[in-house]
Amino acid sequence: MAQNSARLKYFTASQQLNKKLIADLFARADRFKDGLKSKRRLNILNGKTLILLFYEPSTRTRLSFEAAMVNLGGNVLSTENAKDFSSAVKGETLEDTVRVVQEYGDAIVVRHTEEGAADRMAAISRVPVINAGDGRGQHPTQALLDLYTIKEELGRMNDFKIAFVGDLTNGRTARSVSYLLGKFDGVEMTFVSPHNLRMRDDIKEYLNKHKVSFSEEHDLRKVLPKVDIVYMTRLQKERMAEADFALAKASQFIINMENFKLLKQGSRIMHPLPKVDEIQLPIEIEQKDQRVAYFRQAANGLPVRMALLEHLLQDPGDYQ
Amino acid sequence: MAQNSARLKYFTASQQLNKKLIADLFARADRFKDGLKSKRRLNILNGKTLILLFYEPSTRTRLSFEAAMVNLGGNVLSTENAKDFSSAVKGETLEDTVRVVQEYGDAIVVRHTEEGAADRMAAISRVPVINAGDGRGQHPTQALLDLYTIKEELGRMNDFKIAFVGDLTNGRTARSVSYLLGKFDGVEMTFVSPHNLRMRDDIKEYLNKHKVSFSEEHDLRKVLPKVDIVYMTRLQKERMAEADFALAKASQFIINMENFKLLKQGSRIMHPLPKVDEIQLPIEIEQKDQRVAYFRQAANGLPVRMALLEHLLQDPGDYQ
Amino acid sequence: MAQNSARLKYFTASQQLNKKLIADLFARADRFKDGLKSKRRLNILNGKTLILLFYEPSTRTRLSFEAAMVNLGGNVLSTENAKDFSSAVKGETLEDTVRVVQEYGDAIVVRHTEEGAADRMAAISRVPVINAGDGRGQHPTQALLDLYTIKEELGRMNDFKIAFVGDLTNGRTARSVSYLLGKFDGVEMTFVSPHNLRMRDDIKEYLNKHKVSFSEEHDLRKVLPKVDIVYMTRLQKERMAEADFALAKASQFIINMENFKLLKQGSRIMHPLPKVDEIQLPIEIEQKDQRVAYFRQAANGLPVRMALLEHLLQDPGDYQ
Repeated sequence: MAQNSARLKYFTASQQLNKKLIADLFARADRFKDGLKSKRRLNILNGKTLILLFYEPSTRTRLSFEAAMVNLGGNVLSTENAKDFSSAVKGETLEDTVRVVQEYGDAIVVRHTEEGAADRMAAISRVPVINAGDGRGQHPTQALLDLYTIKEELGRMNDFKIAFVGDLTNGRTARSVSYLLGKFDGVEMTFVSPHNLRMRDDIKEYLNKHKVSFSEEHDLRKVLPKVDIVYMTRLQKERMAEADFALAKASQFIINMENFKLLKQGSRIMHPLPKVDEIQLPIEIEQKDQRVAYFRQAANGLPVRMALLEHLLQDPGDYQ
Repeated sequence: MAQNSARLKYFTASQQLNKKLIADLFARADRFKDGLKSKRRLNILNGKTLILLFYEPSTRTRLSFEAAMVNLGGNVLSTENAKDFSSAVKGETLEDTVRVVQEYGDAIVVRHTEEGAADRMAAISRVPVINAGDGRGQHPTQALLDLYTIKEELGRMNDFKIAFVGDLTNGRTARSVSYLLGKFDGVEMTFVSPHNLRMRDDIKEYLNKHKVSFSEEHDLRKVLPKVDIVYMTRLQKERMAEADFALAKASQFIINMENFKLLKQGSRIMHPLPKVDEIQLPIEIEQKDQRVAYFRQAANGLPVRMALLEHLLQDPGDYQ
Repeated sequence: MAQNSARLKYFTASQQLNKKLIADLFARADRFKDGLKSKRRLNILNGKTLILLFYEPSTRTRLSFEAAMVNLGGNVLSTENAKDFSSAVKGETLEDTVRVVQEYGDAIVVRHTEEGAADRMAAISRVPVINAGDGRGQHPTQALLDLYTIKEELGRMNDFKIAFVGDLTNGRTARSVSYLLGKFDGVEMTFVSPHNLRMRDDIKEYLNKHKVSFSEEHDLRKVLPKVDIVYMTRLQKERMAEADFALAKASQFIINMENFKLLKQGSRIMHPLPKVDEIQLPIEIEQKDQRVAYFRQAANGLPVRMALLEHLLQDPGDYQ
C-alpha cells in the first residue's frame, strides 16, 4: 500500500506517509492555520467537488472534511445514508459504487464499517479516495492531525514520552497514530489499559520491527508524572463487556482532578473526542490550563484536512 | 439573557429584542424581500459558513435557514443526525460539541429537543448561536417572521386584536410571539383553546407585567368577527391526549368555510405551518382570498432569516 | 400532461418529450460532456438554487442531480428526510409542501413513493418540478439518459433491436424508456421475463398505439445473438415472491460469461444500476469489453441532467 512517489494518489493508511510527505502536509497546514485566523475563503479548489460517502454516521468527521473543502473554495456532496444504496440493501459491490460515484466529483471521502473498505475503493477509483475510518482499521487523517498537534504543542516530533490510555483493543486511533510515531526517533510509548482491552499484537510487532520502544502499564497514576503526552481514548461502552467498562472507568484509567495534578508542567492531554467519563475536569481548567490540548487538537483537524485536500487535488495533472 | 448592546451576539429568545433591534432587522428584511424578486444572489456573506446542528429533524426550518445563507452568498454545512454524536449516544456534553463545531464555521443554528439547549451553547460559543427551536422553549426566528408578517399585512405593529388558537400549552409559537407583541402598544390578545390546552401561567405573568391586555375564550366563532389576526397553531396529535385532540378539532376551534365567513374584511389568518385539520379551506380560497396569509407568512421566513444572518455575521469586528 | 411549447415548464413524464425537445436536450448534453473532460466549473446557473425533496432515500440519484447543479455553478439544498415533514408524519398535503418550499429555490427535484406525486406538485408549483422517481410510476431523467446512451453507443436512435430483461412488472425503468423509444422508427423491442414478471398491459397498449413492434420471450439466450441493446434491470428481491426471484436468477434471465459470449459484436449491455446477480461478469471484462456500456451509461446521467437543468432554469423569463 505504501507508495514512494512524491505525491499521494489516495490516503487510506498512516503507513503511506514518509517524513518528506509529512513535512509537505504540515507546511501546507501551517499556512492554512495562519490563514484561518483572518477568516478569508481561499480559491484553491474552486470548481472542484468532494464526495463524502458515509456508510455510518460520523457527523463530526464529515463536518470537518466539508469545512476543509468549503474553506478551499470547493464544493461538497454528502451522504450519511450510503449504506442505503450499498451491498447491505441492494447488493451492490463497493467497486461498482466507486465506478459510479467517481463521475460526480474530484475525490471521495469514505467512512465504512468494514476494515479494508477504503483500500478496495482506492484500488479501482479514478479519483483520490480518503479513508475517514474503516471499522476497526484506521482513521489516518485523525492520526495526521494528532501528530500535527504533538508538533505544535511540544515543538518537536521526536524525543518524547507518550501514554495511550483506555480501550486499546477496539479503538483505532492509538493504532493509526502509533504507525506514524514509529517514523520518528526517541519516541517512548506506554500503553495503559485494563487487561482485557490491551493493544493488539499486530501493532506491537510493527513497533518492534521499527525499533520503537514501548511498555505496558495498568495504572495511569504511575505514568502521569513521566510523560509528555497523555493520549486518552473514549470508552466505547457499546463495544465493551460490562465488567471491562466498569474497570476502565476506575481511577487508574481516567483523568480526574486528582490525577490531573500528577501531570508535569509542559505536558499535554490529548483526546480524539468525543470524550465521556474518561476525562472529568471542570470547564475552567479546560479553558485555562495549557495542558488541556484536546480542543486545540480538534481545531487542527481543519488545517490538516485542508492540507491533505490541497495535496491530493491541486493540479492533478502534475502527478501521474 | 437580554442584552442592551446595539447588536446581537447570538439569538436564542424573543426577549432579547427591543424595538430598535426589531426596526434594524425589519429594514434589512425589507431590502432583501425586494431583492428576492429579481432572484439575484448577493455576496454579503461570501466566504462565511453556517453550521446547522439539528438534534431532531425539521426539514422546513433547516431549508429556510440554508436558503437564507445561500442567498447571501454564504455556505452551509448541515446535519439532521446531530443526536448521533450527542450526549444521547456517546455521552458528549453540548458544551464540548460547541467547542469543536465552532471551528468549522462562522455561526451555529441549533434545533434541540431540550428547553435551554441553545442558551447553554450560546454561553460558551465563540461564534453566534441561533435557536431554531428548543423543545417546549422558544423558536424566536419564527416569532420574528410572525411579527414581520403582521407589520406587512396590517401595515402596523400596534393597535390590533389577535387571537391565538389551538394547543397553547405545548405549542411554543404563540409563546415566542407573545413576548414580542408585549413590546408594542394597543395589542389585545385572546387565547382560544380547549380547557386542557390553555396558555401556561408564565406567559400570562409576563403579559401582566408588561401591561398587555389579554383574555381567554373557548369558542373561536365568538372571536372571529372581532380580531385582525387569527393565529392558528397545529394540533400536535402526538403530544395530546385523545380526548383533547378530538375536542380541539371541534368546530369551535378550527377554521372551516363556515367559520371563515365570520372573519371581517381586512383581517388575516396566520399559521406557522405545517397545518392539518385545524384549517379546512379549499385551495381556491387559499389562492385568492387576501385574508389567507399563511403562505406569505412562510415566505417571509427567508428575508427575515437573511436579515438576522446579516445582522449577526456581517463585519463581526464591529461589535465587541 | 404533454405540452407543445418550445420549452418544458416541468419534467415529470417521458411522454412530455417530442423529437425536437430531445434534440435540444441532447445538444446541450453533448456540449456539457465535452466540457466535463476539462473539469471546468460553469457559471450558467450562478445564483440559482435547486431543492431536492426525497421522500425515500436514493443517494445515487440525489448525488447525480446535485453534481449536475453544482457543475453548472448553482447551489443545492437537499433532504432525504422529506417524509418527516410530510403527510405521513404531520399530515401536511404535498400541495402545501410545494407552496412553502418553492420559496427557497428555483426548481424542485422530487422523489416519492407514490405514483403521481410529482405531477401533483408540478400542477401547483411556481417553479419547475422534476420527477426523480414516483413509486411504480416513472423515472423520466433515467429514461432520457438511457436514450442518450443508445444514441452515443449505437450512433443512432432508430432502426435497432433492444431487449428489456428482468422484472418488467415492478421496474419503472423499462417502462419510462419504452415511451421514449416509441417516438423513433424501426425500434424492435423484446421483453424477456419470467411469466409472473411480465411487462404490464398499459405499456403494451401504448406501443401498439404508436405502432412500435414488440414481442415477448422467456429465454434471454435466444435473444442475445440478435439484439443491439440488452437492457438488464435489477432483480428487486424485496418486491418479488421467492419463487419468482429464484426463477429470475436462472441462467435464461441473466448475463454470465457463458451468455455474454452469445452477444454480437457492436452490441451493448445497459443497466440502470445498481446491479446484483443479474450480471455476473469479471471486472476485467467490464473494464475492457466495449459491449459493457452500463458505467458509461451511469456517467451520462451527469451531462443529461445538466442539460435538463439548463433547459428548465436558464433565462426563465423566456418561456411563459
